[in-house]
Amino acid sequence: MINRGLYVGRFQPFHLGHLGAIKEILKEVNELAIVIGSAQYSHNPSNPFTAGERLVMIRRALEEAKVDITKLWIVPVPDVHLHMLWVSALEGYTPKFNIVFSNEPLTRRLFMEAGYPVKDISYYSRNIYMSTVIREKMLKDESWTHLVPKSAADFIKEIDGVNRLRDLARTDKVC
Amino acid sequence: MINRGLYVGRFQPFHLGHLGAIKEILKEVNELAIVIGSAQYSHNPSNPFTAGERLVMIRRALEEAKVDITKLWIVPVPDVHLHMLWVSALEGYTPKFNIVFSNEPLTRRLFMEAGYPVKDISYYSRNIYMSTVIREKMLKDESWTHLVPKSAADFIKEIDGVNRLRDLARTDKVC
Amino acid sequence: MINRGLYVGRFQPFHLGHLGAIKEILKEVNELAIVIGSAQYSHNPSNPFTAGERLVMIRRALEEAKVDITKLWIVPVPDVHLHMLWVSALEGYTPKFNIVFSNEPLTRRLFMEAGYPVKDISYYSRNIYMSTVIREKMLKDESWTHLVPKSAADFIKEIDGVNRLRDLARTDKVC
Amino acid sequence: MINRGLYVGRFQPFHLGHLGAIKEILKEVNELAIVIGSAQYSHNPSNPFTAGERLVMIRRALEEAKVDITKLWIVPVPDVHLHMLWVSALEGYTPKFNIVFSNEPLTRRLFMEAGYPVKDISYYSRNIYMSTVIREKMLKDESWTHLVPKSAADFIKEIDGVNRLRDLARTDKVC
Amino acid sequence: MINRGLYVGRFQPFHLGHLGAIKEILKEVNELAIVIGSAQYSHNPSNPFTAGERLVMIRRALEEAKVDITKLWIVPVPDVHLHMLWVSALEGYTPKFNIVFSNEPLTRRLFMEAGYPVKDISYYSRNIYMSTVIREKMLKDESWTHLVPKSAADFIKEIDGVNRLRDLARTDKVC
Amino acid sequence: MINRGLYVGRFQPFHLGHLGAIKEILKEVNELAIVIGSAQYSHNPSNPFTAGERLVMIRRALEEAKVDITKLWIVPVPDVHLHMLWVSALEGYTPKFNIVFSNEPLTRRLFMEAGYPVKDISYYSRNIYMSTVIREKMLKDESWTHLVPKSAADFIKEIDGVNRLRDLARTDKVC
Repeated sequence: MINRGLYVGRFQPFHLGHLGAIKEILKEVNELAIVIGSAQYSHNPSNPFTAGERLVMIRRALEEAKVDITKLWIVPVPDVHLHMLWVSALEGYTPKFNIVFSNEPLTRRLFMEAGYPVKDISYYSRNIYMSTVIREKMLKDESWTHLVPKSAADFIKEIDGVNRLRDLARTDKVC
Repeated sequence: MINRGLYVGRFQPFHLGHLGAIKEILKEVNELAIVIGSAQYSHNPSNPFTAGERLVMIRRALEEAKVDITKLWIVPVPDVHLHMLWVSALEGYTPKFNIVFSNEPLTRRLFMEAGYPVKDISYYSRNIYMSTVIREKMLKDESWTHLVPKSAADFIKEIDGVNRLRDLARTDKVC
Repeated sequence: MINRGLYVGRFQPFHLGHLGAIKEILKEVNELAIVIGSAQYSHNPSNPFTAGERLVMIRRALEEAKVDITKLWIVPVPDVHLHMLWVSALEGYTPKFNIVFSNEPLTRRLFMEAGYPVKDISYYSRNIYMSTVIREKMLKDESWTHLVPKSAADFIKEIDGVNRLRDLARTDKVC
Repeated sequence: MINRGLYVGRFQPFHLGHLGAIKEILKEVNELAIVIGSAQYSHNPSNPFTAGERLVMIRRALEEAKVDITKLWIVPVPDVHLHMLWVSALEGYTPKFNIVFSNEPLTRRLFMEAGYPVKDISYYSRNIYMSTVIREKMLKDESWTHLVPKSAADFIKEIDGVNRLRDLARTDKVC
Repeated sequence: MINRGLYVGRFQPFHLGHLGAIKEILKEVNELAIVIGSAQYSHNPSNPFTAGERLVMIRRALEEAKVDITKLWIVPVPDVHLHMLWVSALEGYTPKFNIVFSNEPLTRRLFMEAGYPVKDISYYSRNIYMSTVIREKMLKDESWTHLVPKSAADFIKEIDGVNRLRDLARTDKVC
Repeated sequence: MINRGLYVGRFQPFHLGHLGAIKEILKEVNELAIVIGSAQYSHNPSNPFTAGERLVMIRRALEEAKVDITKLWIVPVPDVHLHMLWVSALEGYTPKFNIVFSNEPLTRRLFMEAGYPVKDISYYSRNIYMSTVIREKMLKDESWTHLVPKSAADFIKEIDGVNRLRDLARTDKVC
């Protein structure tokens, strides 16, 4: 059987920590399924980008970094919100995997209870909240482009992403 | 084609700012679709009134103010929660419209990205959080009836609305 | 209290049987809430028109027939699919009503179990499947415009409704 | 007709306040429907345990306390989130009941508006937030087992419940 | 660990085949979780009874047959419709089980793919479609009460179940 | 801007007609987004395979046929069931596209109403119902492997797909 890993993120936006994690994981497995979580959400302050936009961001960044995409499966998966169903939902949307890479406590707990081996990501561990930090920097007009691959920064500019995020942050609508 | 506007609110409750906005918009369009947003919600602290109760509140207030209701479409629309689908949902529930009136940043952004002209409401802009303020005054037993049309205040009294809101505010149930 | 009736239909499309029923019911009540059921559906063979399109059809037909719309509440309501919740959903989306008009066995049963008085519609009873018949005539290119108000026929033409229905009928997609 | 009460809780976890309430209510009714609310949720900080785990906890605690379970109906019910539908949902999932026992303001309000008699639970009133307190004590490694029936404490240990809750509390995932 | 079985049915209505199956299974396990499937549905031709009504039917029939209910867990579970999530949903709503009893091909397949041992029910196999047959007999006014426990027949009469089913069967509403 | 097409299918299973269509479309566009529709469904007679299994089938078949996957985006998208929202949902899950390839009448109608250019697929037109035919042949134990890429046939064997389909077809469970 193929030695295939699973790696889940929301990638709002995709940043250098994510890229480092993927490179590191690919040293340990033959293939990797990268799940774009919360795929149905966009245009809210924690999830500004659509699944389609995140797909583009990730693919361009991987090409920029010369990662071999034939070893990857990039799969958007909508949240089910019922944590007891989440492992099954991921199993249904992805190719069969035999190991899970995550530093996120809930993800680790759910896969552990389902009997999967779960491994830490040493590189990524320093960066776990980086997406949140980047969105905050975007809102405060602080520099953030050095934290993401150049292609991702270009794409966010192309879709007017920072202005979108600022509009979302000013809403009074409950998300 | 008819020059028809769209105006979205939750109307929890309908107040004088909403009424002023509608009057102002009707100077610019021939017809107006008024969407009662978050229609499926009621009996929670931010959404105490049902869609049906809000329909009554709005209709009575418009009659009180002698607004010509034959130019209006008052349409409850449930939230879809997926912002990428919201413009389409509104298009599906309402008569065709060609301009959107809103000061709400998310609404403006979504319709702008979908290619609609979006206009500010000058009158309403001073009152954007008025519903929240009114609900707070209800909770604190401060005077609030001067902020809503008389018929709306009467109706809220008729359905024991302030006591309902107080009960909702004391709940420990996660909404 | 206002003597207010409830009348539920899907109005796919609105036809002369519906119009006759509304006129008949208005002799017995002061106000009538007309619910556009299955509001979230459109573009399928049984539900070709959106809630917004059905709203327009009904309003134009009522104006054509000189029915006083200030006595009416026309309210789109999405299906909940759980019949045990349906009466409550209708109560939440509409102004308070005290009598239900229907010849539809399920509607009658649910409101009867909830304790509402339910009355037959004598005029409409001859026409209960007329919407289905009209859609079939549209598909077979038989004459159907005499079965609907002139304004409804005009509107269906305006939105290219018959061709839409034919495309929907030819789909192999499961609805 | 049987004199049957309704009592709703989330039981995250089941504690001595719940047990006292059930004993007290059973003095006033012949049968009692105990609803495990928010049944579809688990593995989040406010709802760490599955419906199935809560079922086991409650049954074992009732056996330990020698409560006659043939008088009880223990029924998991998923939240509908639309409060206007909640009373109907509970009516659909449970045997017919004629009185509701609750100190929770929203529950009281909804059943009162639906016409049910609603009674306070004197014993339980002192303990309304006890589940929250117990979960906090679990997180802080303070003693909590004296607040729940012995069998519930044993079961939570058996399923490694405290460690699960700690993992959930450390997540950055939006629930 | 307790030797606990799982047995899933819709019980529309509960009949002598179900009762026989439960008695047979109880010879092989110490405890049995009986799941009332499709719990959210009622008032449609295939699912005339609510989960609450089915709960009453089952409990009364078990008492009539002197089955020891302290060995049973009777749990309503709503359908999730995504078959890839169904096993997880059942695991979340019930106490831990280690064997599944079913003659239903989909149920057998899903639990088999999830790694559970699955056993046939020899008694029940002759009766797999009996609920459908009973509902058809009810509709045609043929005798059916000999196919269900006496208490179930009495309860169906008590709630006017046969007339309800007839009304449902005459509906033109799409379920 | 990139000339990017959209092509939607359920791929239950992926067959030579699909492969031919993709090759044909790639002559006209620079990139192609292939949407795996009804992604949330599996284990029912019309949708036997999970989204993950269909992903594997498609990728292996494209590799076998030496199609350049760096020009492709293969994206599972769950159905929304509200056709008025479907175009928006597809826009949200995929990279921006400017032309739609389809022979399916509903797909064509929805994208046409949304203003997209829609093109026929000449090759595929002869094969529109081929997936249905293949599933029927699987059920009847007729030869079908010549209708799909060799790698897809191998994968279906690997996951015991034909036996799964047969079990699904024998179920009495409503899907």
